[in-house]
Amino acid sequence: MIQSIQTIPGGTVTSPQGFLAGATSASIKPGTQRLDLAMLFSTAPCIAAGVFTRNRVAAAPVLLCREHLSEGKARAVVANSGFANACTGPEGLEDARETASLAAAKLGVPKTQVLVMSTGVIGVPLPMERIREGIKRLSLSPSGGNELAQAIITTDTRTKEIGLDFELGQTRATMGGVAKGAGMIHPDMATMLSIITTDARVDPAYLPQALVQAVSLSFNMISIDGDTSTNDTVLLLANGLAGNSPIEESSPHRQVFQEALNRACLYLAKEVARDGEGANCLIEVCVEGAASAEEARAAARTIVASPLVKCAVHGADPNWGRVLAALGRSGAQVDEGRLEVFVGDICVSTGGRPQPFDQDRARGLLQRPEVLLRVCLGLGDGEARAWGCDLTEEYVKINSAYTT
Amino acid sequence: MIQSIQTIPGGTVTSPQGFLAGATSASIKPGTQRLDLAMLFSTAPCIAAGVFTRNRVAAAPVLLCREHLSEGKARAVVANSGFANACTGPEGLEDARETASLAAAKLGVPKTQVLVMSTGVIGVPLPMERIREGIKRLSLSPSGGNELAQAIITTDTRTKEIGLDFELGQTRATMGGVAKGAGMIHPDMATMLSIITTDARVDPAYLPQALVQAVSLSFNMISIDGDTSTNDTVLLLANGLAGNSPIEESSPHRQVFQEALNRACLYLAKEVARDGEGANCLIEVCVEGAASAEEARAAARTIVASPLVKCAVHGADPNWGRVLAALGRSGAQVDEGRLEVFVGDICVSTGGRPQPFDQDRARGLLQRPEVLLRVCLGLGDGEARAWGCDLTEEYVKINSAYTT
Repeated sequence: MIQSIQTIPGGTVTSPQGFLAGATSASIKPGTQRLDLAMLFSTAPCIAAGVFTRNRVAAAPVLLCREHLSEGKARAVVANSGFANACTGPEGLEDARETASLAAAKLGVPKTQVLVMSTGVIGVPLPMERIREGIKRLSLSPSGGNELAQAIITTDTRTKEIGLDFELGQTRATMGGVAKGAGMIHPDMATMLSIITTDARVDPAYLPQALVQAVSLSFNMISIDGDTSTNDTVLLLANGLAGNSPIEESSPHRQVFQEALNRACLYLAKEVARDGEGANCLIEVCVEGAASAEEARAAARTIVASPLVKCAVHGADPNWGRVLAALGRSGAQVDEGRLEVFVGDICVSTGGRPQPFDQDRARGLLQRPEVLLRVCLGLGDGEARAWGCDLTEEYVKINSAYTT
Repeated sequence: MIQSIQTIPGGTVTSPQGFLAGATSASIKPGTQRLDLAMLFSTAPCIAAGVFTRNRVAAAPVLLCREHLSEGKARAVVANSGFANACTGPEGLEDARETASLAAAKLGVPKTQVLVMSTGVIGVPLPMERIREGIKRLSLSPSGGNELAQAIITTDTRTKEIGLDFELGQTRATMGGVAKGAGMIHPDMATMLSIITTDARVDPAYLPQALVQAVSLSFNMISIDGDTSTNDTVLLLANGLAGNSPIEESSPHRQVFQEALNRACLYLAKEVARDGEGANCLIEVCVEGAASAEEARAAARTIVASPLVKCAVHGADPNWGRVLAALGRSGAQVDEGRLEVFVGDICVSTGGRPQPFDQDRARGLLQRPEVLLRVCLGLGDGEARAWGCDLTEEYVKINSAYTT
């Protein structure tokens, strides 16, 4: 725990110096009035990195971001909700390219330094006429982060935003972030849309590593439904306006920066899991004593993604057998005689056997807004945490009628 | 299609010669009156094979079956519902062993030739007093197959039974089967409880191979919820009373026997999928043109298990983008430009792009009791089919309150 990292009340993606944002209602889904088109802009050049879906059916904006990030530089991000611009063929890629070009012309920056993100229904071409008009109308301000956060959500019930500031020696720097989640979320990839900004100066060679580390502990450890999106994207933009000496692998302040980044990603990832489609609670699964860290990760992810575990939590049912069944198919080594399972602080099973416990108290713990399930394997030092949410009737309702 | 294989109306696990069965209500779950303890017995010695869960947390009856099948012989099976005798420690294995011994004493057969199956709640010791009494009370008859089928179901809404007869040269032989399914079902393993019986004479070296092939095309291609049980077991018992010359790898009649076995397993597996917890329909996913058969299997299984695809079918929503998103994370090679997606006979996407189609007709096809989704990859000869069911609010309700 690094004490100098502090949360900024009301902090968001425009909290760091030099970042502006804005959003508009472009009626991307016909008939809707909500904010659905947003832009983020840095007044100073940024170095940038991204982590993207590993789905082999990758959306056009993902393809364009990968192309534009090949030089590791960016000035702006255009994001829309409503349609995902996925499974839209070569025309979809042209649409993404045109979106970037229009934003570049408006902002006076090279088009290859504009990144694009889309989320929403797959397989519908973007309504470019309305996007062209929307981009014209967009206006930017240093307090526009919340508007951007609103514009990118879909079935989310609330925005996900964070701001942190931290000391890099004598310099104070800031980091901001937004994310959207809700459905088609699973740890097999970067997981949804998120933008992290910072005014810290960071060495371009180090930035992508820092992002990969933070994502592996956060966005890649959440699951809402086991489905992985064609559009998952996490972007990190650093404009250097804080004026610190550049952070690189060997910097004395690397650890502070990495922890701020980890903390921002973890906060946003947990907010995404907590606000999963139809969810009533956040589930945290902690696996300890696994034979390796990799096995601990596999076990934690499998347990938190199990529909039966998620239903049991929804029903406040301390049905720990489902936790062990999920553990058993995770690929992690298991010695039943050494197992311990906890609901919150209550041990419900030891040595692979039932353990008498206070059912009412366990039910009470499962009805809290944050539920902790802990499994100790007793085999080694591997530890991991994963996050998800309960599975409710509402999830099914939302997803039975999404395009209609 | 082998013409000589015919379905026996009302056929079940006691249809083949020499197989008797019976069931009783042992109140294994206190207060219940339903049939919950059953026995199958062959009047003649059988060769036997089994396919079991690959979950590392395997239930006591699975451990005992593996031990007893090491010689490939069996005379009887005892099965119970209510409690799964999983995560019950060494005492659970002793309980399974005692169950087998009591049945062996009653039937006058070696205890190592009695197999045991359990299904139900994990982590609760079997009520051995009631099981001892139940075994005493059990009576067997050549028409007892349906009682056995009733006794092994849990959240199933109906029994799954089949009988087939077929010609092995001049001899007519019979095969019967039962299964139970409903929840915790996923193709990572043998999938639930099923017993297949036959009076055909089969070479002991060939029997396990035949079962593995049939299971790989049937039980291992269904998914209800992606969760894999600690108790999944498929048993095959052959008592040879038909008197045919033994079927082995090189027999002229091997193909007839294998197809009868495939057909019995496939029928039961599809019945299990169709009757998934809360399900309204059977979903069949057909993948064609994959780079390999293995990739086709992975793609079909991933698509049929996707919660978002299952919800879309439930909502009669031809949201084919979810099919492609699932395909993209399945590990199968994909060239978006060559893809075609069909709902029933309607092409809804070609070349990774939307394709105009009759929405109302597609919705109509998605409201039928059997829904076909077909994906053509255009890359090779790999083909596979997988089966599942829609995801409904009812699934969540059932699984939020299972132990309570």
